[in-house]
Amino acid sequence: MARVVVDVMLKPEILDPQGQAVQRALPRLGFAGISDVRQGKRFELEVDGPVDEAALARIRELAETFLANTVIEDFTVRVEESAEEVAP
Amino acid sequence: MARVVVDVMLKPEILDPQGQAVQRALPRLGFAGISDVRQGKRFELEVDGPVDEAALARIRELAETFLANTVIEDFTVRVEESAEEVAP
Repeated sequence: MARVVVDVMLKPEILDPQGQAVQRALPRLGFAGISDVRQGKRFELEVDGPVDEAALARIRELAETFLANTVIEDFTVRVEESAEEVAP
Repeated sequence: MARVVVDVMLKPEILDPQGQAVQRALPRLGFAGISDVRQGKRFELEVDGPVDEAALARIRELAETFLANTVIEDFTVRVEESAEEVAP
């Protein structure tokens, strides 16, 4: 069983009010030095069987037709390597 | 200017109705072989200046106090390497 991660973010030219709200709140909360925040979605898919090119192609199709609205959003598909956790 | 990514996901033991809704819809839409879907949030922070240990510590504090609800969510903080885009 492998994990495939699909990240869906608004395209750079699309206004991101959620991200802006976070960014504007930061100085008030004592966090300076962050010039932009964008907020998007992360999907973790547990895939049965091997994640070969065919499986990734299917997942890309799934992401394009179903997880992302490609008019306003970009997505990336990647196989997650071993855990890279920094915080619990 | 560097980009730091904060991923916020529900803890494994917390029910994820959004992810379940996606997972249940997949067979109907012709995508088999995906046994679980979890949906979370991805924040992209554009950081002014160098991303050293101090900056990462601040961002971890920010994520813990502000971006994630650590009662029900886990988060990871990482510096984004060069683009790993699979789809446009």
